[in-house]
Amino acid sequence: MIRLDRTSTEPLHQQLYRQIRDELRSGSFSDGASRLPSSRALAVELGISRLTVNFAFSKLHAEGYLRSKAKSGTFVAHPLPETFLSPIKLSTARIGRGGSEICPAAKRPSRIADRVVELRDQRVGNQFDLGRTAAGPGISLVPSIPAVDEFPVAVWERLRAQVLARKGAHLLRYASHLGDPDLRKAIAAYLCDFRAVRCDPEQIVIAAGMQQAMLITAMAVMNPGEIAWVEDPGYLQARRAFILAGAEVVHKPLDNEGLMITRARRDPLPKLIYIAPSHQYPLGITMSFQRRQTLLDFARAHDALIFEDDYDSEFRFVGPPLPSLQGLDNSGRVIYAGTMSKILFPSLRLGYIVAPEGLVDAMAKIRNAIDQHSSPIDQATLARFITEGFFLSHIKRMRTIYAQRRDFFVEQFNALLRDRFTLQVPDAGLNMVAWLKREEDFPTVRRITLEIGIGPVPLPLVCIQAKLKPAFIFGFAAWTPAQIRESLVKLASALKAKGV
Amino acid sequence: MIRLDRTSTEPLHQQLYRQIRDELRSGSFSDGASRLPSSRALAVELGISRLTVNFAFSKLHAEGYLRSKAKSGTFVAHPLPETFLSPIKLSTARIGRGGSEICPAAKRPSRIADRVVELRDQRVGNQFDLGRTAAGPGISLVPSIPAVDEFPVAVWERLRAQVLARKGAHLLRYASHLGDPDLRKAIAAYLCDFRAVRCDPEQIVIAAGMQQAMLITAMAVMNPGEIAWVEDPGYLQARRAFILAGAEVVHKPLDNEGLMITRARRDPLPKLIYIAPSHQYPLGITMSFQRRQTLLDFARAHDALIFEDDYDSEFRFVGPPLPSLQGLDNSGRVIYAGTMSKILFPSLRLGYIVAPEGLVDAMAKIRNAIDQHSSPIDQATLARFITEGFFLSHIKRMRTIYAQRRDFFVEQFNALLRDRFTLQVPDAGLNMVAWLKREEDFPTVRRITLEIGIGPVPLPLVCIQAKLKPAFIFGFAAWTPAQIRESLVKLASALKAKGV
Repeated sequence: MIRLDRTSTEPLHQQLYRQIRDELRSGSFSDGASRLPSSRALAVELGISRLTVNFAFSKLHAEGYLRSKAKSGTFVAHPLPETFLSPIKLSTARIGRGGSEICPAAKRPSRIADRVVELRDQRVGNQFDLGRTAAGPGISLVPSIPAVDEFPVAVWERLRAQVLARKGAHLLRYASHLGDPDLRKAIAAYLCDFRAVRCDPEQIVIAAGMQQAMLITAMAVMNPGEIAWVEDPGYLQARRAFILAGAEVVHKPLDNEGLMITRARRDPLPKLIYIAPSHQYPLGITMSFQRRQTLLDFARAHDALIFEDDYDSEFRFVGPPLPSLQGLDNSGRVIYAGTMSKILFPSLRLGYIVAPEGLVDAMAKIRNAIDQHSSPIDQATLARFITEGFFLSHIKRMRTIYAQRRDFFVEQFNALLRDRFTLQVPDAGLNMVAWLKREEDFPTVRRITLEIGIGPVPLPLVCIQAKLKPAFIFGFAAWTPAQIRESLVKLASALKAKGV
Repeated sequence: MIRLDRTSTEPLHQQLYRQIRDELRSGSFSDGASRLPSSRALAVELGISRLTVNFAFSKLHAEGYLRSKAKSGTFVAHPLPETFLSPIKLSTARIGRGGSEICPAAKRPSRIADRVVELRDQRVGNQFDLGRTAAGPGISLVPSIPAVDEFPVAVWERLRAQVLARKGAHLLRYASHLGDPDLRKAIAAYLCDFRAVRCDPEQIVIAAGMQQAMLITAMAVMNPGEIAWVEDPGYLQARRAFILAGAEVVHKPLDNEGLMITRARRDPLPKLIYIAPSHQYPLGITMSFQRRQTLLDFARAHDALIFEDDYDSEFRFVGPPLPSLQGLDNSGRVIYAGTMSKILFPSLRLGYIVAPEGLVDAMAKIRNAIDQHSSPIDQATLARFITEGFFLSHIKRMRTIYAQRRDFFVEQFNALLRDRFTLQVPDAGLNMVAWLKREEDFPTVRRITLEIGIGPVPLPLVCIQAKLKPAFIFGFAAWTPAQIRESLVKLASALKAKGV
């Protein structure tokens, strides 16, 4: 059904090419056995020169629409190139999106993928994707969320423009697995001065946040099946990082001095002990000096490493900040790590490890195999932010704001909800544990918080083996006093309405 | 040696507190057995009230400098809080930085850390840290480096300012493990239109570049000990990602149609096959249509998955870009991945996976445990960059520049070095393989390139089992014609001077 228009500006061979191509694309010749008329026959039929036909044929040939068989003529290629150039035709109807019905392997994730997030997490859909929870405009009082609206974005962007202007295209290239040298220096200086960490910039490994710091460490030091001790209740993300590295996770209970070092004689020894001594999540315990010594002695006796997550150490409201465990150690077995997520803003995805020198190279290799390196632009900007003093002044400013919000939260909470909860007021951090006075209220309170868009984390969700009384972990830092009051009033009236 | 100044504005109790504290800090009482005089005795000695002494003592007590023993009096605490607040005193001299001599565990990286970077990589120090190599101002003709100085940074930063202005603090928060919804949509549309990939935005998983895309995939689908096939010679970073996931890597040879699907009967079957069909690294092979079909048939027969690294597909200089293997598959077993590193700039650290639907959730969990998510600001900026058309026009512009540089490189190389090398001119990508005409020249050429700061990768470095003739992989894309000429002239004269 070829119609050539001799009045068109489109050359005849191009018209012929286009029409045959479209005909083939329409699917009429999909069996692959169709032979085309000879160029001579087609030329006669259409009243054009054979040269024109040959020109169109050779183009179709080059593009894969036609193929020649020696001595038998020209055939329609099968499959046509276009059948895989136009994906819509094939996909949706016949095989469904991605065709997962057809491929069993694509429905069978690895065992690690199943293990890495506990069933208990999946039960509470909205808690799993922290991003979604925290980002939800209606959801308030979610723990561990800093007040990002107080972050001086304009200052940050100005420093970014300055480093881009100064270093230019250099910052767009591949960069060091260990991190920006200026940033490593700036962080080492900060940690020496303010966290009593012993370190040289050469020991600093930049990571994409605390999560990756834990993963890099686990992969750099642990062999599959080796034991990691973690706090229970504790930070589930730590557990996940160790599982991803193939480690076996053993859950250790806590008392009011911190992780308990008890061990039955038959229990295997840990290779690594994860702790957050400055401010434990979720219970807010600060590890006592005595316990720190016991822990270091235990690690020394059994040649174990300690991973110190210096969580929320910057936001201590009572007394001077406690020095790090790493600084107390004199055997180089503490791997110290921190993140900018709470101090600056979570989406920055920058943290750091202070590694014993013997592990720095292994960590660089692991980082290379995980994702190469962190954004050099963000790293250079952060280095300036620290060295120009914005970092310390931001911490100071936020400490004041958080202390005010903490006090306001306590006052309001006790005024409104004292009958139902016992509030445990923290010395540090962005969260607060509220213990239920009547355990049987737990399911109702849980349901109500979900219904009214208030996001405290139920304590049982972060307990693996620990059996603690039911409680909720409230965040107070990211909401203004007005928002705190509004949320607590809403919670109190909803509980009252339900007779709790 | 306490001296109180009664004329000072500093209260007497504060003077007393400060002087005792400084005395203790100086280390005079470091044995921990020192008892202080009673408050009564001290008051008499100094001629002040006992209340003043008690005031100073209670402060020292609270800060951890003193401890009381029932009925025995007040003692100097041991250790003093300050000994771990001032890290310098203890560390450097006595234990060395990090004390790695003392802790055996911190000198024993995991087996994975040893395995993940091959000995062959470590032999060539300067190749391992790609960042350092590529960033070195003097080193030219390094492969796989795009021309970042041609990237429109100003446009990018303007779009960034726009998204920050529009979404504000929202972009500073934790975000989705799967990625920014706008970006997932924009990438799905691009891949459907230009890469003939079949996908729905729900199947897109944003990753921190190709390296992480490979790691997420390996961890989401492979169990320890399962087999991954990789190309040999090939992209060593792929090998590393699979090793990190605990997989066994089997190296498959290539012919001029791509990866060879041969398998001895006793060989274990692969769970995953890694290929770069658009443009293989380092040999530049485009996998033939026939081989693609064979590969898909093989994968279907043995329920294997395919990981398609659509490497350099955008920079094809001859003929139309080839459609993706994923689009050709109709059984949903191809996991397709791409990166922005070469198209835009490497330090952006953004890539994507198009996953079969049954694997998306597993990948989100793995991403969560690796490092949570990518920067939401970068993701939102990239989404705008794509939807506003800058992405396509940048690709087009760079294709023209790279084609010119390729042609210029070929012309100059052949004029200057034809006697020593046979140049293999690629149809696509940023690299070029130059085969040595005399194999015995290899060590000398290798040494000379290092000496004169020219960075081609020796082919043997990326061969694991393959025995190929010696060659060098040159990058031509990131250097101007003048720089290309200068480097090649330098190489030609250095070779001449050494009699090669």
